[in-house]
Amino acid sequence: MAQAAAEMNDDDKALVISQLANGILRLTLNNPPANALSIALMQTLRDELAAAEENREVRVVVIAAAGKLFSAGHDLKEMTGHREDADRGRAFFEKTMRMCSDIMLQITNLPKPVIAEVDGLATAAGCQLVATCDLAICTDTSTFCTPGVNIGLFCSTPMVAISRAAHRKQAMEMLLTGEPVDASAAKEYGLVNRVVPKEYLRTVSDKYASAIASKSPLTLKIGKGAFYQQMDRPLAEAYDYTAWVMTENMLARDAEEGINAFLEKRDPEWTGR
Amino acid sequence: MAQAAAEMNDDDKALVISQLANGILRLTLNNPPANALSIALMQTLRDELAAAEENREVRVVVIAAAGKLFSAGHDLKEMTGHREDADRGRAFFEKTMRMCSDIMLQITNLPKPVIAEVDGLATAAGCQLVATCDLAICTDTSTFCTPGVNIGLFCSTPMVAISRAAHRKQAMEMLLTGEPVDASAAKEYGLVNRVVPKEYLRTVSDKYASAIASKSPLTLKIGKGAFYQQMDRPLAEAYDYTAWVMTENMLARDAEEGINAFLEKRDPEWTGR
Amino acid sequence: MAQAAAEMNDDDKALVISQLANGILRLTLNNPPANALSIALMQTLRDELAAAEENREVRVVVIAAAGKLFSAGHDLKEMTGHREDADRGRAFFEKTMRMCSDIMLQITNLPKPVIAEVDGLATAAGCQLVATCDLAICTDTSTFCTPGVNIGLFCSTPMVAISRAAHRKQAMEMLLTGEPVDASAAKEYGLVNRVVPKEYLRTVSDKYASAIASKSPLTLKIGKGAFYQQMDRPLAEAYDYTAWVMTENMLARDAEEGINAFLEKRDPEWTGR
Repeated sequence: MAQAAAEMNDDDKALVISQLANGILRLTLNNPPANALSIALMQTLRDELAAAEENREVRVVVIAAAGKLFSAGHDLKEMTGHREDADRGRAFFEKTMRMCSDIMLQITNLPKPVIAEVDGLATAAGCQLVATCDLAICTDTSTFCTPGVNIGLFCSTPMVAISRAAHRKQAMEMLLTGEPVDASAAKEYGLVNRVVPKEYLRTVSDKYASAIASKSPLTLKIGKGAFYQQMDRPLAEAYDYTAWVMTENMLARDAEEGINAFLEKRDPEWTGR
Repeated sequence: MAQAAAEMNDDDKALVISQLANGILRLTLNNPPANALSIALMQTLRDELAAAEENREVRVVVIAAAGKLFSAGHDLKEMTGHREDADRGRAFFEKTMRMCSDIMLQITNLPKPVIAEVDGLATAAGCQLVATCDLAICTDTSTFCTPGVNIGLFCSTPMVAISRAAHRKQAMEMLLTGEPVDASAAKEYGLVNRVVPKEYLRTVSDKYASAIASKSPLTLKIGKGAFYQQMDRPLAEAYDYTAWVMTENMLARDAEEGINAFLEKRDPEWTGR
Repeated sequence: MAQAAAEMNDDDKALVISQLANGILRLTLNNPPANALSIALMQTLRDELAAAEENREVRVVVIAAAGKLFSAGHDLKEMTGHREDADRGRAFFEKTMRMCSDIMLQITNLPKPVIAEVDGLATAAGCQLVATCDLAICTDTSTFCTPGVNIGLFCSTPMVAISRAAHRKQAMEMLLTGEPVDASAAKEYGLVNRVVPKEYLRTVSDKYASAIASKSPLTLKIGKGAFYQQMDRPLAEAYDYTAWVMTENMLARDAEEGINAFLEKRDPEWTGR
């Protein structure tokens, strides 16, 4: 009991609370009140994702948030504080934008699926984080917004993720007006996969995560990696590449086991090879 | 009568039933019970598409399926049978994936529009086939699925077509969960154009096919070809290319006839030149 | 009064009526009855857009149309008239297609947002114009169509804009069938952002334009430019590029002012630097 309470206290202080159970790693943003993506939070998230990549126990990652907001994006006070630097903040701003972009690429390149579990407002880099995850589930009261244009700082890195998730004009409306879109529009735009009442968020998120955690980790790694690789290639090259990927996949132990189990009408036993 | 019956018998045995009427070539997958895309079926389909390209009578192609399923994708038993080969099946798997990709590119490169007419389940390479066709019409009880992840073999070639038809997160949900999406969601995702009650499937499919068959074959060839060519190019290059395409198109006999007919308020007479 | 009447008369004759108020430049296509994109109209539009780029008073551009149609695309009679040229019209057709493509790229490259305000039919290059604008608002009775296929002249330059705004199969349906889609489908396809009753078109268009005109012009320029630049790049390159863009953006006077104003809970004062 005492130990659990102590851990809870540690958790309360951590900028990203990390919980692993049943192959599902929950990373909960915990930087109240706005879960701002400060340098310290981004470093922690980056390290947690790097550890998740190495940890064979982790099969799927869920990124959630504590409190009433998902994330309001970068820490404007932290950034403004560096305007007094000798270089007017250039090095710090570059570090911030670079680290943010690196984390987004880290999520895309992570060989394990990443699900955003969103309740409340996701703005700027917070909205980018949702758009970047492989899947996203949100409550029906969640809203999504790229309001940088209102403060003179266009959401240019968020646009990378959002313009690849949604149609162009939809992304442009968010970026040029800075107005929030509700959960229903976010689903229509392709920013999220599922909209649920708040009381079911965790249940639905767990259902998705458990379903994915039950697959072969090797297969997920092959497939997720191939997805983003082929997206950036012309059609014929994409087919050349994926035809090779599927041939290699067929020769893996888990494909042999999975197909045999299917033909024999039994559950497969994955070895991750 | 006797001959018709004999032909019907031949048709019953053909892996792909081929019927040409009024410029519409119907290719019906006929490999019960699952219309598996075996090597033999793919070879037949490839040959039929090659013949369709050459045959001036064919103006539009419809790919339909006999039985309760559209297609369940590759023939897993056929593939598994080659695990005993000296190379553990590598050559056969490569042949399968290569041939499947080639057929998809053949459909894309065919200078005549191809419509998928779907009733029932379309899974894995079967779902890819629907996503690859220029247009798709399905019954309201059709379902679409990329369940390879469940058997350790990620649907990596299907993802090429699906991720280019739908939004990323929608494609990812199908690929990572392996869960089916219904006809209504498939339309929302952009996998199909139209959802109709079963009793109207053929009527609506015929309506689309007839409408397209009434256009100039040369114009369709120019336009379909340009569509996929420009999609893979940056914006300015896409405009350079299509401005040239339209100039050439204007100089063709069918454009002159079509525009004259329009200005003179009469029906055009296409010569295909 | 006399002067106003004289100007109104001039306006009535202008192929593109230009009105600037409160930072919003309205360019109204005025080539009755079909607002055909003749060479003369395109030259006027091109010059107006070039002037808008230079004019610091212009913060956002609205492209609207006089009369019952938005635009029926190229002037077919004008084009047909050049079939008697020594080169059968090649040079003129090339000039038309090239100028049309250049205007579309000019809109995309204009460092100020462009909104299409649509009431009625937008066909062929008229539909392309709507698809090309950064945002589009239309009445609920507007329709969109690429009917070139019906007259032997496939809408190959329009496809560039439409296939980048909508899903592929949706674009293909418009292009291959030549059938119109209604306003509701156009919104679903991503061709327009908002559908409104006719009596509210101007109000809603003004609301969008005013909201955007209230932002920092420098920020809009940075953001719009970055949007189309990054769209054509692979993911990692897009992040490299936009991380650099945001760093530069942070160092601009307007970002400093905007962020300070936000933190101090006051309205920003933009200087456009």
